[in-house]
Amino acid sequence: MAEEAGTGTDLPVKRAREEESGVGSEAVNHNNGAAVEEDAALPQGVSAVIPGWFSEISPMWPGEAHSLKVEKILFQGKSDYQNVMVFQSSTYGKVLVLDGVIQLTERDECAYQEMIAHLPLCSIKNPKKELFEKPFFESVAKALRPGGVVCTQAESIWLHMHIIEDIVSNCREIFKGSVNYAWTTVPTYPSGVIGFMLCSTGGPAVDFKHPVNPIEADENAQSTRPLKFYNAEIHSAAFCLPSFAKKVIETKSK
Amino acid sequence: MAEEAGTGTDLPVKRAREEESGVGSEAVNHNNGAAVEEDAALPQGVSAVIPGWFSEISPMWPGEAHSLKVEKILFQGKSDYQNVMVFQSSTYGKVLVLDGVIQLTERDECAYQEMIAHLPLCSIKNPKKELFEKPFFESVAKALRPGGVVCTQAESIWLHMHIIEDIVSNCREIFKGSVNYAWTTVPTYPSGVIGFMLCSTGGPAVDFKHPVNPIEADENAQSTRPLKFYNAEIHSAAFCLPSFAKKVIETKSK
Repeated sequence: MAEEAGTGTDLPVKRAREEESGVGSEAVNHNNGAAVEEDAALPQGVSAVIPGWFSEISPMWPGEAHSLKVEKILFQGKSDYQNVMVFQSSTYGKVLVLDGVIQLTERDECAYQEMIAHLPLCSIKNPKKELFEKPFFESVAKALRPGGVVCTQAESIWLHMHIIEDIVSNCREIFKGSVNYAWTTVPTYPSGVIGFMLCSTGGPAVDFKHPVNPIEADENAQSTRPLKFYNAEIHSAAFCLPSFAKKVIETKSK
Repeated sequence: MAEEAGTGTDLPVKRAREEESGVGSEAVNHNNGAAVEEDAALPQGVSAVIPGWFSEISPMWPGEAHSLKVEKILFQGKSDYQNVMVFQSSTYGKVLVLDGVIQLTERDECAYQEMIAHLPLCSIKNPKKELFEKPFFESVAKALRPGGVVCTQAESIWLHMHIIEDIVSNCREIFKGSVNYAWTTVPTYPSGVIGFMLCSTGGPAVDFKHPVNPIEADENAQSTRPLKFYNAEIHSAAFCLPSFAKKVIETKSK
């Protein structure tokens, strides 16, 4: 299967949990900055002190928190791996939360899902299928055929440049083709942005910034499920970085 | 003075307050969504229930709130027009708050300030001076000489497309030259993005998307105060819009 795979995306989970395992998000009942344990009966992140709101507080983004108003908790349980909650929010539609961290909301999921799927799919001429693979770059590089591409979630330029720096370094060592960083706006993610790592194996060169497989506006308009966010212009713009991020990433590229 | 002005920006205040006058932000002590009055002794937005954090809650962005951890309140007072607070945050540096709404933080102010200044300044060949003018488009249009440009704050594509729609419509009627919408990422603003309206009067055509007055990377690197965010690539990328916003704005452009 691996040899046939043309592209790989990590669609099922928006934010990779590997870096955060054992960290999770803390209770909302912050008291002078010291997290307080939640009432065990309440889903993680739903506050007993501020009833009706869900807050995302984590050592991964210290000193800031984003909160959404909860209309109704639709599901709450525990899978083999994670605490799962789905709630109806007052202004972002249904919200999926894993281990206390927002994974997607109906209102802004298009920004992440459409970008992580189409940035790689539109960068090569004949994408064969999506590979749902664990995000370890060496395994992915081995799994892809020459000219294959992969797109994984790669943190926020505002919060985690040091992690991005390492990811770019590692990818430059492992992947023999193109290695590029792109980003998109996601209001319900910490800092409001999230990045993607786009890598290709050796073989035919891949120019990620200029889609060779563009989705035409007319074609999209006629679709029964038109894309809400992605288009060819936003594809190229996603690779344009603020100077502070560009400087770090280009240094790692040399 | 007006006739000499080449460009206009509204640098002093990041978020225009006209739309929000009389609304302001509410207390953080939200209780099932009903805002509760703050303790009069506490600055607006600093909670008595969650000590040590500042939260931004407003009917302008219902159902969501962004919070920053406060290390120390550095200034608190009332000007003739606004409640003013400056605090040292734990991870965003010093923060300026007017009427309970974050105006700028040391950590991300570059994204707003550099973009609102350079998007117009780099779009014309001989910018003469900045015009600090009230953001009423008709007055601005009258104040500018032919070929003059203006850049004003223009809300978030995620939160206020209906307001943006009206702004674009009005600007298309008033300005005889180019009218374009651009955006940037600002983590401490609601939804994490903010937009700009770029307009030119009749006269020499202005192509906002492609700077004729670019700031070269070498030139910036040698500056004593190099720009942290703005560069020529991010200038052009700022005009690339997600499909949902592009559709509305292009409809208004016809």
